[in-house]
Amino acid sequence: MAHESSACSVARTADVLGDAWTVLVLRDVLNGVRRFDDLAAHLGIARNVLTRRLAALVEHGVLERTPYREPGRRERHEYRLTPAGRDLVPVVLAMMAWGDAHRAGPDGPPVRVEHAGCGAAVRVELRCAEGHRITPGERVRSVPGTRRAG
Amino acid sequence: MAHESSACSVARTADVLGDAWTVLVLRDVLNGVRRFDDLAAHLGIARNVLTRRLAALVEHGVLERTPYREPGRRERHEYRLTPAGRDLVPVVLAMMAWGDAHRAGPDGPPVRVEHAGCGAAVRVELRCAEGHRITPGERVRSVPGTRRAG
Repeated sequence: MAHESSACSVARTADVLGDAWTVLVLRDVLNGVRRFDDLAAHLGIARNVLTRRLAALVEHGVLERTPYREPGRRERHEYRLTPAGRDLVPVVLAMMAWGDAHRAGPDGPPVRVEHAGCGAAVRVELRCAEGHRITPGERVRSVPGTRRAG
Repeated sequence: MAHESSACSVARTADVLGDAWTVLVLRDVLNGVRRFDDLAAHLGIARNVLTRRLAALVEHGVLERTPYREPGRRERHEYRLTPAGRDLVPVVLAMMAWGDAHRAGPDGPPVRVEHAGCGAAVRVELRCAEGHRITPGERVRSVPGTRRAG
């Protein structure tokens, strides 16, 4: 993708996420769906489309591909999040929170995400380094970063 | 988009965000770039592509379109986030944080986001309802939501 502001971290992440299918592949892997056939069946995605999305995520260092073999069958592959991939969890959960708030049907959110340690619901919060929680109506502003003047 | 798990809130948000250009349009509007010509120039995006992305974001209820007129010129439009659009700020900031952590060049992150109230840097955190902060290595799990059995 070519855009003037391509140095932006949002742009770089958007390039990795690519499109909606890519985000859904990540969501499934995060939820423990790791094998090609399981992903294809769960997503209802064409196999060639899934192959391309998985290859791009591996190339971007977000997923790693590991061989496995079931008795009497040929070798296959499963996919796991790398540490960089696990760092995308807040992106996926922030997307889930927005969908829950603005697109959930009359039956409410289809899933909720829990803290494995204590079972309480997980939410995405914005906080500043001073510890203030930033509420949805409150303003944030972008300023030049730590980048050295060039 | 057709996918088996289309009831998922992540899928619904991914449909709204659409593609990388859409995310960058949102980022710019969030940063105060609101007019069509300014967006087109800043993003380096073809005008017909920008027109379609803006129309989709208005249709999705994320942006609102307001007319303005400068002296001696014809009426034009600018775009502002709706309340639902402001709720996408955590998604954009989570994407920025990932790009800063995993794709920033040697010069460091190009921008930082501050709490307008106190000037401290804003970060995206995962916390559970018990107030525990969830660190990147820690596990979260998805469970069926509040949806009624049907």
